[in-house]
Amino acid sequence: MPRSGQPLPLFGFFRRFLGQDRAFRQAIATVIGRTPDNVRLYHLAFTHSSVVRQQPEQGRHQSNERLEFLGDAILGSVVAEYLFRKYPYEQEGFLTETRSRIVNRESLNALALKIGLDKLVQLDPTQTRASRSRSVNGNALEALVGAVYLDHGYKAARKFVLNRLIKPYVDVKALATTTSNFKSKLIEWAQRQGKNLRYDIEGQPQIGGTMEFSATVLIDEEPVATGMGLSKKQAEQTAAERALAVLGV
Amino acid sequence: MPRSGQPLPLFGFFRRFLGQDRAFRQAIATVIGRTPDNVRLYHLAFTHSSVVRQQPEQGRHQSNERLEFLGDAILGSVVAEYLFRKYPYEQEGFLTETRSRIVNRESLNALALKIGLDKLVQLDPTQTRASRSRSVNGNALEALVGAVYLDHGYKAARKFVLNRLIKPYVDVKALATTTSNFKSKLIEWAQRQGKNLRYDIEGQPQIGGTMEFSATVLIDEEPVATGMGLSKKQAEQTAAERALAVLGV
Repeated sequence: MPRSGQPLPLFGFFRRFLGQDRAFRQAIATVIGRTPDNVRLYHLAFTHSSVVRQQPEQGRHQSNERLEFLGDAILGSVVAEYLFRKYPYEQEGFLTETRSRIVNRESLNALALKIGLDKLVQLDPTQTRASRSRSVNGNALEALVGAVYLDHGYKAARKFVLNRLIKPYVDVKALATTTSNFKSKLIEWAQRQGKNLRYDIEGQPQIGGTMEFSATVLIDEEPVATGMGLSKKQAEQTAAERALAVLGV
Repeated sequence: MPRSGQPLPLFGFFRRFLGQDRAFRQAIATVIGRTPDNVRLYHLAFTHSSVVRQQPEQGRHQSNERLEFLGDAILGSVVAEYLFRKYPYEQEGFLTETRSRIVNRESLNALALKIGLDKLVQLDPTQTRASRSRSVNGNALEALVGAVYLDHGYKAARKFVLNRLIKPYVDVKALATTTSNFKSKLIEWAQRQGKNLRYDIEGQPQIGGTMEFSATVLIDEEPVATGMGLSKKQAEQTAAERALAVLGV
């Protein structure tokens, strides 16, 4: 499944031959599939805020957090369109849920490691490996998407996300299947056991005008598990997933 | 401040002269500033799920909900980049919070009314005006952004959002100022009153790997108000805003 993409050994190789800057350019080109124009953007994408805090004369805007904000949005759009086209007959709730499974923190961290970003991220050197936050690499990946967008535009960012991340490394079909399965699996179980199944839904208004929902699975009126989500459906899915775990189904 | 954009009377005018379909095209062109290529997309953008439910032979994918999912993502990206460039020295938390103030449900509903979308949205005709959900127009606006993206690409969608929505109708500076104000306003109040102020933060893991935080404002260890958010900062902002309301500051 993994493509050519192992920038890590290449990076060491190029660094020895070409010097730090050309090696970095080369590593970026290998990862994104295109030569960077504005290298500064990519340096920024890999600069964790812990490095900047060591240099108080620089502002926090010199870390990758702002690029991460931008890249998170671009990534969300690209994956939204990808799923929109791939699943023309699925409803909005399915698309939302499947996207959140693709772009969640853990999935992004795993993707970042697969393309070798951990070797490029600059951290405060006094931080030990153990104290390194688990989301550092996923955040850097989002920032990298933001950098590609600013450097080469939306189409290039889209191409990078689809051709270098999603298609080679993400099993979208498996994620999508899981998405639609928990609720029906729980219904089937309840029917087999002759038990009554229902969900208790509560909504709480969020800032930004959205709602967050919590769904509690009740089996024969006994609460079994609760899930949260930004739609009722999402909350029910999570609750059903947890209920299946609790019930050992 | 409002531009030319009053498609409502125009729409009636064109409908009488040109017939329903050309009138619709013309109304869309007036709203988005560009002639539609694939008109079907725009019809879909204005088709509320209540209409589709009346025609059970059509799937729910024939309503605007899927386009709304896509448009929400594109809108989020465009506004993210706009704020990223407009505020080069502000941190990620500020950008996130300001964006959520621009694209929240109420703000989108208001925007949709300003450009006359309520006249284009197709609802179940048996629904009374009163039962019409308040977010119908905002959702149609998101779906319209999705339609423009599919019809004309990212740059055109970006242009529509910035030139036809944000710049003419949204007072971004005022929103941004409010964003940064609640917490500092509350601190100033506490200092004047000689009271102790602190926040109690709790995090709850969400599906998708993100966290949701709740922040409770404590004045002299008395809880005054609680706010929720997808970052600690966001939760604190909301809590501070509510505390100011409760305290009548």
